[in-house]
Amino acid sequence: MSKVFFDVGVSLDGYMSGPNASPGNPLGDRGRMIHKWLFETGYFRKLLGIPGDGEDSVDNQLVRKVFARAGAHVMGRRMFDEGEVSWPEEAPFHSPVFVLTHAARAPWPRKGGTTFYFVTDGIRSALAQAKASANSKDVRISGGAATIRQFIKAGLIDEFTLHVAPMLLGAGGVRLMDQLEVGDLEAAPIAAINSPLVTHIDYRVVRR
Amino acid sequence: MSKVFFDVGVSLDGYMSGPNASPGNPLGDRGRMIHKWLFETGYFRKLLGIPGDGEDSVDNQLVRKVFARAGAHVMGRRMFDEGEVSWPEEAPFHSPVFVLTHAARAPWPRKGGTTFYFVTDGIRSALAQAKASANSKDVRISGGAATIRQFIKAGLIDEFTLHVAPMLLGAGGVRLMDQLEVGDLEAAPIAAINSPLVTHIDYRVVRR
Repeated sequence: MSKVFFDVGVSLDGYMSGPNASPGNPLGDRGRMIHKWLFETGYFRKLLGIPGDGEDSVDNQLVRKVFARAGAHVMGRRMFDEGEVSWPEEAPFHSPVFVLTHAARAPWPRKGGTTFYFVTDGIRSALAQAKASANSKDVRISGGAATIRQFIKAGLIDEFTLHVAPMLLGAGGVRLMDQLEVGDLEAAPIAAINSPLVTHIDYRVVRR
Repeated sequence: MSKVFFDVGVSLDGYMSGPNASPGNPLGDRGRMIHKWLFETGYFRKLLGIPGDGEDSVDNQLVRKVFARAGAHVMGRRMFDEGEVSWPEEAPFHSPVFVLTHAARAPWPRKGGTTFYFVTDGIRSALAQAKASANSKDVRISGGAATIRQFIKAGLIDEFTLHVAPMLLGAGGVRLMDQLEVGDLEAAPIAAINSPLVTHIDYRVVRR
């Protein structure tokens, strides 16, 4: 059965992107530092069409696994807007992507197997459609922070991974774990994998 | 040579204590949830004089190691005030403790080898005294958050450990990694140890 998961890179002070994020600056000011480890992996560079081979590190194997387990993605409209202008023509998802939006729009198929579907009736509808099209694989809640928080608050997350970067962003960016309340998320840590650039922690959500 | 380190428990949203901390409520409202794993270890229960055996888990071995490596401690006055009324007569440090304060006070020896010294001339003086009395062991910056941040900002930390609890505290408590700026702390993760209740990440500070 499909599990619903998210995985995000965060700084030591909890930020997943810097201030002033916009379609031309999707990770915000200094935000790329949080995801430095990701941009050094060969798999991600290839997905995004970034020149240079990148590394085949433990981080690389992990990114490959994350994308391999996802049979469908759900994302917020802002993440889509930011990505639309920066993803290569062959968008990096290679599976159906359900975009939460208020504006209806026809599905948008891209080269390489990614099709963006625009969902106007809320997160549960997007999730049901994603599960139905995930081919028994898992559903990844891709982001951004506000969308992931909606899924957390609705109790719809089964598992998540934090990629903790060993640096501070400083005030001003977007914190993932913010505007949440005690009890919105309780979990059991399943595994921690350390690399020179980042620590990956896998969690299973515990429901009471 | 003595290393300077801190180790703190934090929630997924980065809090090390809850709101309304006071001498009668040293961890703040709900703050004890963040440190649940610690209160279940046999070593910590014995240190604090808490009835019940506790467990001899991977967490227990880690707590034992943290206290064993510290030849001296530095703490802020508020942490001392909060602890003074709750620590047992045999205070849990079993080594010299340098308390940062504005009010001079004679050293206060306790049963079991803990002596509190009150330092009125700042963090560098406290650290120099702690190093001189640590007997070549390491110096632990015990807390609270404001004191640890002072040492981070001054570039005086060599290593640190985060004990990440898999729960949210919700807004209102004290975040460790707050009021800090990009570049105040850059580190390399050395090791990550996972247990059912908490993930311990060891870092070495990288100086540029």
